[in-house]
Amino acid sequence: MGSLDEGHLCVEIEDGMKLGFEKEPETIAIEDAVKVLLLGLGEDVNREGLMKTPLRVAKALREGTRGYKQKAKDIVQGALFPEVGLHDGVGHAGGVGGLVIVRDLDLFSYCESCLLPFQLKCHVGYVPSGQRVVGLSKLSRVADVFAKRLQDPQRLADEICSALQHGIKPAGVAVILECLHIRFPSVESVLLDSKHQGWVKVLVSSCSGVFGNENADAWVDFLGLLKFRGVTMEKILTRDSIKQSWCPSHSSSMNKIPSELVAANPEMVAAVSSILRSLGEDPLRKELAETPGHFVRWLMNFENTKLDMKLNGFTCGITNLLKSNGEVGSCSNEHMHSELNLSFWSQCEHHLLPFYGVVHIGYFCPIGFNHIGKSLLQSIVHFYGFKLQVQERLTRQIAETVSSILGGDIMVVVEANHTCMISRGIEKFGSNTATIAVLGRFATEPAARAMFLQNIPDSTTTTSQTS
Amino acid sequence: MGSLDEGHLCVEIEDGMKLGFEKEPETIAIEDAVKVLLLGLGEDVNREGLMKTPLRVAKALREGTRGYKQKAKDIVQGALFPEVGLHDGVGHAGGVGGLVIVRDLDLFSYCESCLLPFQLKCHVGYVPSGQRVVGLSKLSRVADVFAKRLQDPQRLADEICSALQHGIKPAGVAVILECLHIRFPSVESVLLDSKHQGWVKVLVSSCSGVFGNENADAWVDFLGLLKFRGVTMEKILTRDSIKQSWCPSHSSSMNKIPSELVAANPEMVAAVSSILRSLGEDPLRKELAETPGHFVRWLMNFENTKLDMKLNGFTCGITNLLKSNGEVGSCSNEHMHSELNLSFWSQCEHHLLPFYGVVHIGYFCPIGFNHIGKSLLQSIVHFYGFKLQVQERLTRQIAETVSSILGGDIMVVVEANHTCMISRGIEKFGSNTATIAVLGRFATEPAARAMFLQNIPDSTTTTSQTS
Repeated sequence: MGSLDEGHLCVEIEDGMKLGFEKEPETIAIEDAVKVLLLGLGEDVNREGLMKTPLRVAKALREGTRGYKQKAKDIVQGALFPEVGLHDGVGHAGGVGGLVIVRDLDLFSYCESCLLPFQLKCHVGYVPSGQRVVGLSKLSRVADVFAKRLQDPQRLADEICSALQHGIKPAGVAVILECLHIRFPSVESVLLDSKHQGWVKVLVSSCSGVFGNENADAWVDFLGLLKFRGVTMEKILTRDSIKQSWCPSHSSSMNKIPSELVAANPEMVAAVSSILRSLGEDPLRKELAETPGHFVRWLMNFENTKLDMKLNGFTCGITNLLKSNGEVGSCSNEHMHSELNLSFWSQCEHHLLPFYGVVHIGYFCPIGFNHIGKSLLQSIVHFYGFKLQVQERLTRQIAETVSSILGGDIMVVVEANHTCMISRGIEKFGSNTATIAVLGRFATEPAARAMFLQNIPDSTTTTSQTS
Repeated sequence: MGSLDEGHLCVEIEDGMKLGFEKEPETIAIEDAVKVLLLGLGEDVNREGLMKTPLRVAKALREGTRGYKQKAKDIVQGALFPEVGLHDGVGHAGGVGGLVIVRDLDLFSYCESCLLPFQLKCHVGYVPSGQRVVGLSKLSRVADVFAKRLQDPQRLADEICSALQHGIKPAGVAVILECLHIRFPSVESVLLDSKHQGWVKVLVSSCSGVFGNENADAWVDFLGLLKFRGVTMEKILTRDSIKQSWCPSHSSSMNKIPSELVAANPEMVAAVSSILRSLGEDPLRKELAETPGHFVRWLMNFENTKLDMKLNGFTCGITNLLKSNGEVGSCSNEHMHSELNLSFWSQCEHHLLPFYGVVHIGYFCPIGFNHIGKSLLQSIVHFYGFKLQVQERLTRQIAETVSSILGGDIMVVVEANHTCMISRGIEKFGSNTATIAVLGRFATEPAARAMFLQNIPDSTTTTSQTS
């Protein structure tokens, strides 16, 4: 445990660094690029919610890719401890041959194909040799050095493995990563297809020394201790298959989005290239060639103007539907109806990072009345999701819109995971947020609220990214 | 999201700060005090595993109590965003009255009664007013400012609540903390009583404004969204009951430990008082008066000499027992026996912080032979646990000792949670470690290892602190 490993006294130091950091040319260049992106989305860069967004994005990206400036060797050095093992021929333990595993390290990285953060659980094992063991926290810190770069899962696993092999010089190293990438729902695809849920999950591995190949005995021990995490050799992707199956920006549903969209926004694509350069990357590196286009495609889902146009046709449709179903809210003989777990995706306007989760809507419905279709409510949710948003506003807007259709007694609960709570300094992996909006009877009757809240299923399984 | 909130560029900064930090008088004073504690434990402060321990402890403690130097107000300022709400009389949402909750924030703090870190899950809710909402990450950062001090759960909840009420000026704030404190097993008590497992868990709350009292409607909504976390009003402790039921240093089993132990080590008690002063605390503050004594009591469980003495009588006992049961390992007609989930507590010699978990022991046993009792294996585990240790050595020592009793075919798996992986810079809350030692047939036969590993139950529920 060297002296560079604790993040110590950051707060005091940041204070002193604040001006210097903000004036660095890389920070300013990223800020300028983010302003171009916001303008491309039809946003007013001077509105209060967005004013500090360029600086926030610049800070998050520079912090999130700080691994380029770190060396794994510096971390391991000074954290190797002599530890006697068993005599040769007797067995394996301690400093010789006894497997050491650290499991369930929560990390995040940035996808080099689309520039979005992805979350990962890292399991690392090594077999000591030469009577040397390494401080356990160093396995996590070395993994983090390589996670804090633009990555793909297989290269990340390989780089962690290689750095530990060179730093510790053990009999062997094994690394397994469970990586979770947010899907790329687009406005078009989700309105047509409600199946666009969940995340892309891949399992990759890398190894050296005694872990030599996947049939090595050491692997059996390692996997035996990961069995309850659902990690098996069969589920680990081969090096060939990972490229196609990982980042959703490569998938066919994304390719349906016209490439004219990208061609029509050359200044946005150039801005993302500029960001890559400011992070110390080479935008011409093969794996990064299409990244600016992918990122702009993703962003354009949250374009401002485009979505306003859509609303007009859309509410017309709702009104017509309601007319054919009869008057709403006129009957005193009502019961509460709940529409639960409507999925949503949105983009946090403070950090330009995704937040996503589920929306629950409760309303009172006259008995005998054909209650409003789930797909219609889902459309309203997507409509307000696909914008630069904050969760509080999203909740209110959904409530107001549903109220304008169904009458005044509405309750909306939004449960969300915010990427900005993970892929920035605070790194609160398990946290999630809930917001509530209540109108009419739900505002005045606690019993009505309680009844609706009773219906909401366990969010620890439905909204958690890692479950 | 102000500019001080990201922990940005810490690595580069630490590099430059390294010498300065190590030379600060507070750091040096804590290092000196830790050397006194190590000497009091009968340790050689110059052996390689301990050489950097004083500096590591000083860094961890200063970093872990950095909240004394932070102001919650600085964090919230600049992160308040205008957000329109619903019109008065219509309902509650957005910037007016709509409840906002952040759940499952993992934090750690230091117990002011015993100086050990404790883990907590924080749930925070507030009701916006004046059309202002706060950036979600700020709720976590404000909670962290107060967690990074010497605390007790109720005061921590109160301070978080009060700081948010003053910083955001909302209609009300509610805070619920689920706190987990490691128990205080002592050498004496665990050898007599194997029930000393698990942690002390308490649930505390604090509130202001519309959350006014526990019958307030706003509480119903908040608790409705926490129901799947097992949080109910009935389980929340009252202010009076928390003091007695929290830190195990107050419990009757601790009081069994002779206070002469503390009286006999005045220089250790003085060293802990000196540490409190170096952290900026007043050792004469009422709540801290007994803390040095409690901490020394805890530490003395891991005294070196004392335990060596005990081993002698103890192995004699084992040898006698075996003689009465007949010769071991002579029969070729054997089956594998597993003793699973033997609990252990130990103290990491690199950080002077607890690590704890379970030990699984596999061995071959002649058919018809009365296999060795679980309580004897548990005693061996405790014997090697109650030392300044590293997990790799603990695993090897248990394997070697069991082997000397039962013959050569032994497999030991240790699954542990390390407090030092949580209560320092890397803050990997969910992580845990596993180590393996194999002797004889287990070293040469992968099938034997696999058979034993099959028997090990799901560690994600047995060793996780938070499950």
